Amino acid sequence: MAGRLVRRTRVTRFAPDERTVQREDALAVEEPLEVRVGGSSFSVTMRSPGDDFDLVAGFLVSEGVIWSADQLSSMRFCAGTDEQGLQTFNVIDAELSPGTPPPDTGLERHVYTSSSCGICGTASIDAVHKATHFGQLDDETTWSAELLGSLPDRLRDHQKVFDRTGGVHAAGLFTAAGELLCLREDVGRHNAVDKVVGWALREGRLPLRGTCLQVSGRASFELVQKAHMAGIPVLAAVSAPSSLAVEHAASAGMTLLGFSRGGAFNVYAGADRITAG
Amino acid sequence: MAGRLVRRTRVTRFAPDERTVQREDALAVEEPLEVRVGGSSFSVTMRSPGDDFDLVAGFLVSEGVIWSADQLSSMRFCAGTDEQGLQTFNVIDAELSPGTPPPDTGLERHVYTSSSCGICGTASIDAVHKATHFGQLDDETTWSAELLGSLPDRLRDHQKVFDRTGGVHAAGLFTAAGELLCLREDVGRHNAVDKVVGWALREGRLPLRGTCLQVSGRASFELVQKAHMAGIPVLAAVSAPSSLAVEHAASAGMTLLGFSRGGAFNVYAGADRITAG
Repeated sequence: MAGRLVRRTRVTRFAPDERTVQREDALAVEEPLEVRVGGSSFSVTMRSPGDDFDLVAGFLVSEGVIWSADQLSSMRFCAGTDEQGLQTFNVIDAELSPGTPPPDTGLERHVYTSSSCGICGTASIDAVHKATHFGQLDDETTWSAELLGSLPDRLRDHQKVFDRTGGVHAAGLFTAAGELLCLREDVGRHNAVDKVVGWALREGRLPLRGTCLQVSGRASFELVQKAHMAGIPVLAAVSAPSSLAVEHAASAGMTLLGFSRGGAFNVYAGADRITAG
Repeated sequence: MAGRLVRRTRVTRFAPDERTVQREDALAVEEPLEVRVGGSSFSVTMRSPGDDFDLVAGFLVSEGVIWSADQLSSMRFCAGTDEQGLQTFNVIDAELSPGTPPPDTGLERHVYTSSSCGICGTASIDAVHKATHFGQLDDETTWSAELLGSLPDRLRDHQKVFDRTGGVHAAGLFTAAGELLCLREDVGRHNAVDKVVGWALREGRLPLRGTCLQVSGRASFELVQKAHMAGIPVLAAVSAPSSLAVEHAASAGMTLLGFSRGGAFNVYAGADRITAG
């Protein structure tokens, strides 16, 4: 699978006071993945190939379709081919277990349409907020500030594709004892999180009590919501959180860290889970 | 509008060998925007409030719905209200001009569904590639490497919201003479580009011949495609491009720069537009 993650290319390098040269460079591979549920198209995402079953499983958790491994009956690659007749591995069909309601693939993205205009602002925001199966997160695990401050460097140490391309995001799941449970890289930062969550679902680990998800970029509303849907109590970002990320983390009972660099960090919600020193 | 872009918050600051303190911090505001076309919901995006008409116009260009100001008859905020009964300014309805076909808001996101599984890989990728009105970009404007190398710093100099929050992306449109035509910041990097493109559409400047779009992050397939849809011949990113970004730029006749830092940069496609020194 490694050959699908990085592609060599020729680049022209311009630099001040240097001769312009041609040289080799490595690109992070980006390809579309179409997610189908029971044969119906649900979504297309641009992603790094690899760990695709984890990506699909995690995406279904993020969308509130499933929250337990037994709700997912099977996943398989459809027989899509490219111009040369080669299998593309870019379409996955997921079968839900009997009794698990499928997402509304025909109208799901447009559920807001039916709301009258007088309440459309509210209706739209309500639709953005997905219902979570695990509710408010009351996880009582405590975290040492020293351990949390060390996670960005530990994430960085494991970013193999980033080392070669500089072009991917990462998400790593850690325990309060500092154990790295799962790390995924992807050209899309949402996909990296979905891949971690999908791994956990398939391992029967949801909700992810006692874990911290460290991400390489910023903390948007959507990332906080994805962590919430998986029952992850602590989300830590290397860069800034947004206003809605902070609001959602606070209302979900989550701990949210931002600007986690050089061992220091800001806590935007749920600081009571953290012990100094 | 400035008050809607940044929100103050209290954070708990942990740092090695320092006393844990409470202090003020500034957050980039993130809110959902629902885009409607002719009264039908088309999309919801998480964005920085402000320049919302530009965002909607640019999004419609990116989606291939319009490419000229006269195709857009009007835009207005719908009367959405929050819990306190205040207008949210989070829903915009765009009216297309007579004769401009609306997007298929009911099924547009699921157009792949009808393809048979035997060709689904190809069909899905075809659907990801949108048809562009401006075709292959044969723009003959040449660019000095020195000017291109200076654009990241010039972009950074104008990032007012980033200065306060560290939490937003930026896109800036420059001429080959170095003039900054338009700069937009947004919590979503795609939105920053859509806001620039929407500004240009409303100014009657599409296709954007003789311009370079400098962005603050990486160059994904979607950003290259957005630039292509607006007729922008040169896209420059501070960080890495993906494989599909490079492939699409090459096939569109575009120039693509990456890792543009300290005056140096790599050119991944269309290096013939650039003159050394």
